[in-house]
Amino acid sequence: MTRDWLAPRMADLGTNAIREILKVVGRPGMISLAGGIPAPESFPLDLIEALTRETLSRFGAGALQYEATEGFGPLREALVTYLAAAGVAAGAGEILVTSGSQGGLDAVGKVCIGRGDGVAVEAPTYLGALQAFSPYGPRYLPLATDENGALPDALAALIQRGGVKLIYLVPTFQNPTGRTLPLDRRRAIAELIRAHDVLLVEDDPYSALRYRGEALPPIKAFAPDHVAYISTLSKVFAPGLRIGFVVAPARLHQALVRVKQGVDLHTSTLGQALAAVYLDGGHLTAHLPKIIDLYRPRQAALLAALERHLPTDFSWSRPDGGMFVWGEGPEGMDMEAVYWRAVEHKTAFVPGKFFYTEPGEGLATLRLNFTMAAPEQIDRAVGILAGAIRAVAARRRGA
Amino acid sequence: MTRDWLAPRMADLGTNAIREILKVVGRPGMISLAGGIPAPESFPLDLIEALTRETLSRFGAGALQYEATEGFGPLREALVTYLAAAGVAAGAGEILVTSGSQGGLDAVGKVCIGRGDGVAVEAPTYLGALQAFSPYGPRYLPLATDENGALPDALAALIQRGGVKLIYLVPTFQNPTGRTLPLDRRRAIAELIRAHDVLLVEDDPYSALRYRGEALPPIKAFAPDHVAYISTLSKVFAPGLRIGFVVAPARLHQALVRVKQGVDLHTSTLGQALAAVYLDGGHLTAHLPKIIDLYRPRQAALLAALERHLPTDFSWSRPDGGMFVWGEGPEGMDMEAVYWRAVEHKTAFVPGKFFYTEPGEGLATLRLNFTMAAPEQIDRAVGILAGAIRAVAARRRGA
Repeated sequence: MTRDWLAPRMADLGTNAIREILKVVGRPGMISLAGGIPAPESFPLDLIEALTRETLSRFGAGALQYEATEGFGPLREALVTYLAAAGVAAGAGEILVTSGSQGGLDAVGKVCIGRGDGVAVEAPTYLGALQAFSPYGPRYLPLATDENGALPDALAALIQRGGVKLIYLVPTFQNPTGRTLPLDRRRAIAELIRAHDVLLVEDDPYSALRYRGEALPPIKAFAPDHVAYISTLSKVFAPGLRIGFVVAPARLHQALVRVKQGVDLHTSTLGQALAAVYLDGGHLTAHLPKIIDLYRPRQAALLAALERHLPTDFSWSRPDGGMFVWGEGPEGMDMEAVYWRAVEHKTAFVPGKFFYTEPGEGLATLRLNFTMAAPEQIDRAVGILAGAIRAVAARRRGA
Repeated sequence: MTRDWLAPRMADLGTNAIREILKVVGRPGMISLAGGIPAPESFPLDLIEALTRETLSRFGAGALQYEATEGFGPLREALVTYLAAAGVAAGAGEILVTSGSQGGLDAVGKVCIGRGDGVAVEAPTYLGALQAFSPYGPRYLPLATDENGALPDALAALIQRGGVKLIYLVPTFQNPTGRTLPLDRRRAIAELIRAHDVLLVEDDPYSALRYRGEALPPIKAFAPDHVAYISTLSKVFAPGLRIGFVVAPARLHQALVRVKQGVDLHTSTLGQALAAVYLDGGHLTAHLPKIIDLYRPRQAALLAALERHLPTDFSWSRPDGGMFVWGEGPEGMDMEAVYWRAVEHKTAFVPGKFFYTEPGEGLATLRLNFTMAAPEQIDRAVGILAGAIRAVAARRRGA
């Protein structure tokens, strides 16, 4: 007798198509514009020993011990200042430290999403949020977007229709598009969620990576009781430490703590203690400009290469920050076919269709990352990408 | 308009009664036999700087970067040897590193437990497993136990009745009882789960903490394709690093990776890298005897104090290892009343009823931890506990 050991929710997850196609990215010699990860040279590697020494001298065995689920006290205190600078007013007691922002997404999903609940997401949206939410059985409601992100009118229409349990947005330098929601849309969305008492999950991993222009306040600033604000130190310290944090409305905070306790008891104490010392010592303030100086020319190189190489029927975003540029080809262009052709020539990116919840959407789109490759490599990779696009287009015309 | 933002699963979780009653344990001057945490002096604190240096020299920026969900390669390799010594034959590719063993319990629960599925657990059982499983909506099936742990005949009867989706056991130095399942029961349970194709989750956090007697093979050794074996470095390195691991049957491994990716992407790379260096450098082998030398006299002090102070109508376990001793008073004894009285005199323990899934069970039982207090403190605490027991018994006789 063989029994089925899997719960029904596993069938809902479907196949992990993107994981399958990206398996080839690790091949030797590949130039990857596919990743979403920081450059290793952006890490404050030469600080780690000193940070460890200070952590041990300040906290002793406490840095290695079990910790409260809510988070390590000194880190929560340090995050008060960090969050205030980002436009989020929160006391230490309102901050929940999570295992990366992924841990925050999982906790919110577990607390709020019941089977069949409507979850409004930008089309396209961040894949990690879908991976966090999907096991809880949501019904995704794609939200129309333009080059400035989600359209408040589209959101209003969705809410009016009923059944929006929560909204998930990445308002600044969005993954995958790089788009940033302007101030007036932030205010309009804040107004909507307050009027209809809907919860917004505002995911903000990239706003510190701004290469030009003025910082915008988060939506959280305009609707503090209706926004679970999630961010991370992954892009400004080190992703391997898995330090994220959530500032949720008071009515959700205890429930988030409760479910996180069942998931991992708490986030690594040592990682949290190192992060506290990093923030308290002013190291982030000193180090962040170096990260920006590393990424700004890489983004410029990508935008210039797109201008130089891509066919004229392609358009792309020109974000003021973050890690991604979003491209779109003419209707009928099959970017997965382009992907396989580019990979043969050792260049990878992500076909954009994987960031949509509805099948058949975004077939002609693509996401390009610029943080992991040097400017010369980026130019070469985009040249190869353009060649693959032309080859696929020619084959299509020939067919 | 105010909407309910919580998913139905949150209502199932009920109140967190134990968290409420244990809030007082942190009060100044409290001697706590309530915890389940290692003594801070058991940590290899003086090694951490050197381990960090070696980690950075061996892995560089890789120790701070995103990592595969499955785990950091060098740690998975090091765990092959560690697991083999514990009686678990596993290749590196079969090991999933999790964020503490709690992360392993959550992943197994998410993959396997659908609403209403029967989950057999020892009565009493480990609270953290209930916290991991409960959000997935199980129906707990309490498994009768005696002083040697779960009864195979009781398990056979449960399985025969149908509806056992998975079984959860802590076979060695169980939390909360300290009990260890003898070899013949391990074989009998292995036989049962193979015959009926039922999944067993074997949670083994304590077996390295053996103060006397011979090590026993895990049930995993007798039924490798039917046991998800979960363990942790929390008790032999440092719990604050949150390093656990799962060796699951092949038919579950990919599903566990999949759900873990949605929950936290991966476990802290730095923590995993430090653990790899700790294991590879032979530090665990050198350090473990010091932990045992610290705990053995504490356990002896607790057992002697129980003998000296407790009323003769109490009995208790005499485990060969682990972190806990389990006590049981005469029927009618209300150990929560004893708890509140003992707390007034600055002594805490955990009333045993919290470890049962059925209300009304275990009212006269208690769990005592011996790792966190020095022998003299333990004797004093048990004296106070005995006084509280006598006071509650007298009040009961008087009533």
